[in-house]
Amino acid sequence: MDLLFFLLFLAACGATAATGALFPPGAWYDRLAKPSWVPPDWLFPVAWTTIHLLISAAGAYVAQMNGSGLALAFWALQSAASALWTPVFFGLRRMKSALLVVGVLWLAVLGATIAHWQLSLWAGLAFLPYLAWVTVATALNAAMIRLNPDVRPLRPDQA
Amino acid sequence: MDLLFFLLFLAACGATAATGALFPPGAWYDRLAKPSWVPPDWLFPVAWTTIHLLISAAGAYVAQMNGSGLALAFWALQSAASALWTPVFFGLRRMKSALLVVGVLWLAVLGATIAHWQLSLWAGLAFLPYLAWVTVATALNAAMIRLNPDVRPLRPDQA
Repeated sequence: MDLLFFLLFLAACGATAATGALFPPGAWYDRLAKPSWVPPDWLFPVAWTTIHLLISAAGAYVAQMNGSGLALAFWALQSAASALWTPVFFGLRRMKSALLVVGVLWLAVLGATIAHWQLSLWAGLAFLPYLAWVTVATALNAAMIRLNPDVRPLRPDQA
Repeated sequence: MDLLFFLLFLAACGATAATGALFPPGAWYDRLAKPSWVPPDWLFPVAWTTIHLLISAAGAYVAQMNGSGLALAFWALQSAASALWTPVFFGLRRMKSALLVVGVLWLAVLGATIAHWQLSLWAGLAFLPYLAWVTVATALNAAMIRLNPDVRPLRPDQA
């Protein structure tokens, strides 16, 4: 049952990770102006893989405890918001909408971190790298709006 | 607390619903060949709004019960898979990948329905319209692959 929980949460992470494969950054992202502190490209898949394994383990651990409803509601919210961000940023190039999404994601991860922490110190700690990474992602999204004022959204519905 | 749970699940539904606004069907979808039994356009937002309210209420109800971990793990999985489908189908026009996503979504909704039912008859019943709708969506996605063999995927990364 432990394993089933872990695999279900990991499958949800897989759905959000699939957005990265389906909407890859590509040449457009390479050409964008970025702040000096932008993380190197290789770090993104490493960070996400680590985060997904950690939060799947944390979710599976607390899911078996009584009173885990709040933690798992935040878990579900971060999952949906995370799946939304990549298509909005890379699929539509709507950077301001993406900033709104990543803001919601940041709040969801903060809530998930606190709610997991209340159930288990380890589960809370497992969310900390995610909170740190989404903080960086939010700052990066905001900086890229400022540095690339001429980016125009794609309109796939008109193609 | 009741209301907080409901609002968190509804916010997750909002993230998946936003994909429908951000990746609207548009003229491309209108031109596609569709099976005779395709639901009318007006039914889609009505169905999704109803489903989102029902499953947010079901999630909030079971989240306060002991042993709700499995139901909420399936809830999270359906949320992530649901957020992924629209960008893949309408954003990338990758109908076969979208069929895989909606297949995962169908399994997640089936699992969520059973797991909620085990906790509460009403929570299980609240998931039945969703299960029926995703069954139709899966059949529709499959039929549209068959009826529109010439559709080419969009490549936003090359734009």
